[in-house]
Amino acid sequence: MTNLPTTRADCAALDVKDPLARFRARFSLPTGVIYLDGNSLGALPAATSLRLAEVIATAWGTGLVRSWNSSALAAGWVDLPQRLGDKLAPLIGAAPGSTRVCDSTSVNLFKLLAAALALRPERTVIVSEADNFPTDLYIAEGLAALLGKQHQLRLVATQDLTAALDDSVAVLMLSQVNYRTGRLHDMTAVTAQAHAVGALTLWDLAHSAGALPVQLAAARADFAVGCGYKYLNGGPGAPAFLYVAPVHHAELIAPLSGWFGHARPFAFEAGYVPAAGVDRLLVGTPPVLSMAALEVGIELMAEADLPQLRQKSLLMSALFAARVERELSAFNFTLISPREDAQRGSQICLAHELAWPIMQALIARGVIGDVRAPNILRFGFTPLYLSYLDVWDAVTQLAEVMRSREWDAPQFHHKNKVT
Amino acid sequence: MTNLPTTRADCAALDVKDPLARFRARFSLPTGVIYLDGNSLGALPAATSLRLAEVIATAWGTGLVRSWNSSALAAGWVDLPQRLGDKLAPLIGAAPGSTRVCDSTSVNLFKLLAAALALRPERTVIVSEADNFPTDLYIAEGLAALLGKQHQLRLVATQDLTAALDDSVAVLMLSQVNYRTGRLHDMTAVTAQAHAVGALTLWDLAHSAGALPVQLAAARADFAVGCGYKYLNGGPGAPAFLYVAPVHHAELIAPLSGWFGHARPFAFEAGYVPAAGVDRLLVGTPPVLSMAALEVGIELMAEADLPQLRQKSLLMSALFAARVERELSAFNFTLISPREDAQRGSQICLAHELAWPIMQALIARGVIGDVRAPNILRFGFTPLYLSYLDVWDAVTQLAEVMRSREWDAPQFHHKNKVT
Repeated sequence: MTNLPTTRADCAALDVKDPLARFRARFSLPTGVIYLDGNSLGALPAATSLRLAEVIATAWGTGLVRSWNSSALAAGWVDLPQRLGDKLAPLIGAAPGSTRVCDSTSVNLFKLLAAALALRPERTVIVSEADNFPTDLYIAEGLAALLGKQHQLRLVATQDLTAALDDSVAVLMLSQVNYRTGRLHDMTAVTAQAHAVGALTLWDLAHSAGALPVQLAAARADFAVGCGYKYLNGGPGAPAFLYVAPVHHAELIAPLSGWFGHARPFAFEAGYVPAAGVDRLLVGTPPVLSMAALEVGIELMAEADLPQLRQKSLLMSALFAARVERELSAFNFTLISPREDAQRGSQICLAHELAWPIMQALIARGVIGDVRAPNILRFGFTPLYLSYLDVWDAVTQLAEVMRSREWDAPQFHHKNKVT
Repeated sequence: MTNLPTTRADCAALDVKDPLARFRARFSLPTGVIYLDGNSLGALPAATSLRLAEVIATAWGTGLVRSWNSSALAAGWVDLPQRLGDKLAPLIGAAPGSTRVCDSTSVNLFKLLAAALALRPERTVIVSEADNFPTDLYIAEGLAALLGKQHQLRLVATQDLTAALDDSVAVLMLSQVNYRTGRLHDMTAVTAQAHAVGALTLWDLAHSAGALPVQLAAARADFAVGCGYKYLNGGPGAPAFLYVAPVHHAELIAPLSGWFGHARPFAFEAGYVPAAGVDRLLVGTPPVLSMAALEVGIELMAEADLPQLRQKSLLMSALFAARVERELSAFNFTLISPREDAQRGSQICLAHELAWPIMQALIARGVIGDVRAPNILRFGFTPLYLSYLDVWDAVTQLAEVMRSREWDAPQFHHKNKVT
């Protein structure tokens, strides 16, 4: 980290020459807020309100059922899963026709895990990390129970992943970036290790799509899922996406075999005939309003230069971590995110026994991050709408919370359902 | 049908005294359109645009991640599946806490069918109708293949349903109203027949929720799914719902065991622990924008008196059918919807070998219905935003299409992906 700014003026100077600074005006953010939780819910693109107003009043209200097909009303809803998937594909290094937007991340994970297991019928083990995002593990657990075929979920620590791979392993299922630490896997190397024992890989890109350049095809990843509402700025609960490497398209099974995955959904045939390739993984009717908002987010992200995005993200997170360690050394924070750029996603996580009240006090000052159980303060860095000054000022605010012991106020000790 | 209007003036008189007429102003419908396709995509409630604008600009844009919990911003997104489910429950005769809004109809059907089969582990047969909505059959087919336990999908004609029920049957899966004919099952009688052989019932309410009073609890139905975008006016691809009778809550399995169905989703625990009752059938993060639009539709429907709704629906469909038979006897239409009120949902279907071009010509005149393969013209009656005059005039327009042979024009012979 040779270029880290060391003064507020350094940050201002970096902002002046930041090639991504122009994107800040493309988002609607409240005044007085430094938003470091875009890794949980991305900010609102400025274009979304008008787009949704048009979809509702014109495409739905006036076009009515005709908008499923009509391109005249900028609708063409029936193709939304394909249209959004193909717009998203360049952001994750996927070929056209291999990515679809549909359902939730959890539902898509179920589909792909079932499809992967079907490709390795003689194998029974799913390997993942013990600290993977819980819903990924829950879904695997539920699928194994449903199949009732002695499938085993083998959960190990990151450093034991290589040792856990053997010829009983059907699928290695990992999040590319850990939701709680920000640790980034080397997708190419890990995929090669899995392939060496004949296992397939299934990557959860929730914290990497839109956060850094992902190269699914180049890494030879087999399957991937990801989230629309974090770094892609698709809105609360935005639909998710799924990816299947073209090499698996012909043999792909569709465990949730709904009509949108049928070869001829509107022929209303009695028997199921899968659509070609990844289209067979579509299930029900897409939630058009949520899809329309996600389309705005994907289009906006597609305008950004991903190497520039990655460079700014790493500089911001390194600046944040360095300043915390320098300014807050008296307050017992432990940096749990990797210091090495190559091993870090787009977030910085700090462990502290008072994580919850500290974060609430910080939020009350307008610096929004979140807490992950049991004791982790999490800060996400979204280069399209954050400045280096934001990062600098966020640490200043955190330092003031600690020096003033603001976290000690009773109102900061009440817990929500979601942080 | 003693009270059928026989003149246009009769219809105007009925409209004047229609207690539901006041609802017409609560919808935004294009001028010059008679919309008889609310059974495919419901019309736009007038309140939806503003509600969505607020959710986007205020709850998302300003509240950001805080809106998952905050009730201050009319958000409280984390409870949307429960809140909408409990608002919907009275429309389908369900007790509070037994209905949840989530995912698509197809995904919910998969969950409930898997849960039902798990309650009857010694049985292998799923009975349904050969002309049930295809996605229901596809999902059953896919689930049976996934389970790999010799499950059999036994498809029969409606008149053979009783004979198909024996002690090998785990689940009887039916649509309460047939999508293509409008035929309505007697849910109470059919459920009793299934229970008599120890089978469970799973009802698809896609064409009945919001179209007529449904009485799930009184009929002792075991499971149900349904659609938000038809008679509930929730918007294109609106999320679906599911129902589980309280008697099954304790033993319910959750095959798609995602984090929103966990007992403590935000504790981020490694192992899956199901939430209480029907909440365990939630999977991923709800699509908030689509949920918000559906909430408007459900709230609006909840204002209507369902017996009044049913009475008007039946009178409209009877009027339409009677007038078609009187005015169009020369044109070879075959009425395929039941004449008996007790056996008819809220639609009238006519078979005709030229169904497609006839419907396109009718749509060009502003009367919107749809076509279902191979040869069925389908007309849905939505009492909240249609008048008796609309019904009268729709038949007049259809008669003019036939007398003038407008359907013969080449532009009406091009097929869309969706009708």
